[in-house]
Amino acid sequence: MSRKTVNDLFVHSLSDIYSAEKQLTKALGKLSRAATNEQLSKAFQTHLEETQGQIERIDQVVEKCGLKLKRVKCAAMEGLIEEADELLDEIEKGPVLDAGLIGAAQKVEHYEIAAYGTLCALGKQLGFNDGVKLLQETLQEEKATDQKLTEFAEQVGNPQAKSAS
Amino acid sequence: MSRKTVNDLFVHSLSDIYSAEKQLTKALGKLSRAATNEQLSKAFQTHLEETQGQIERIDQVVEKCGLKLKRVKCAAMEGLIEEADELLDEIEKGPVLDAGLIGAAQKVEHYEIAAYGTLCALGKQLGFNDGVKLLQETLQEEKATDQKLTEFAEQVGNPQAKSAS
Repeated sequence: MSRKTVNDLFVHSLSDIYSAEKQLTKALGKLSRAATNEQLSKAFQTHLEETQGQIERIDQVVEKCGLKLKRVKCAAMEGLIEEADELLDEIEKGPVLDAGLIGAAQKVEHYEIAAYGTLCALGKQLGFNDGVKLLQETLQEEKATDQKLTEFAEQVGNPQAKSAS
Repeated sequence: MSRKTVNDLFVHSLSDIYSAEKQLTKALGKLSRAATNEQLSKAFQTHLEETQGQIERIDQVVEKCGLKLKRVKCAAMEGLIEEADELLDEIEKGPVLDAGLIGAAQKVEHYEIAAYGTLCALGKQLGFNDGVKLLQETLQEEKATDQKLTEFAEQVGNPQAKSAS
């Protein structure tokens, strides 16, 4: 029983998303290279840079709240990336793969939206006001990225429209 | 290269969420038993029944759209459940565990929101109108469950308020 308090839970959750973001930086470069649609490829690249900023933001939260992260590996992000890798293995480059990648990326974004939402709720309870402010910035970025991906899914990532003769 | 068309991608995505929902039915009973807060425990039980209905709905989509599901195991849901299991191993029953379970369940809901959102987008492209209608019903249920969990996180799942002396 190593997580007894809300503070322990907060530290574990923050360590988990730290691991998730680190894993994601490696995956996003691959997604960017795999996407055929130029705008989509660029969006993955932009989100990679954003993710690096989000990792730095976690470092700031740790500092501001006087915490120490634990070494954990986020199992859920591992599974999410595994799913994206399966797509890369099974579908050749083109609009169908792009549509698959958009879906995989939206799952990742939603994982992060839930994770940062929980962290904000726990952080508020703990009175980590400065930390919560930073986490809310990231939460808004993740929501904006998800929204952008939804637009891609409707416009760009419409393989049937693209491949219609 | 086994998924070449949007239809293949749709079938794979539907098979994936079918596996996810099946895994979830097993996990939700455990979460319901582990929750101390009675309302939360009941909410997990209610969502278990809802999930069983959602599985039946996927069966209907398969029938209406003339599809055949593939045998896949959803790796992401496996990871999400692993995270919830870790909480059960590491935190004793009580308000802190309840707060952790709410967070874990919201990650699950967000996974499903992204998955059904993608399925609706792909289904529309394929002209699966009846199927999309069913999938949208499930999408709304998942969003409502996530909303309910957010309210729990703010009200019931506030362990600090509860444990404050």
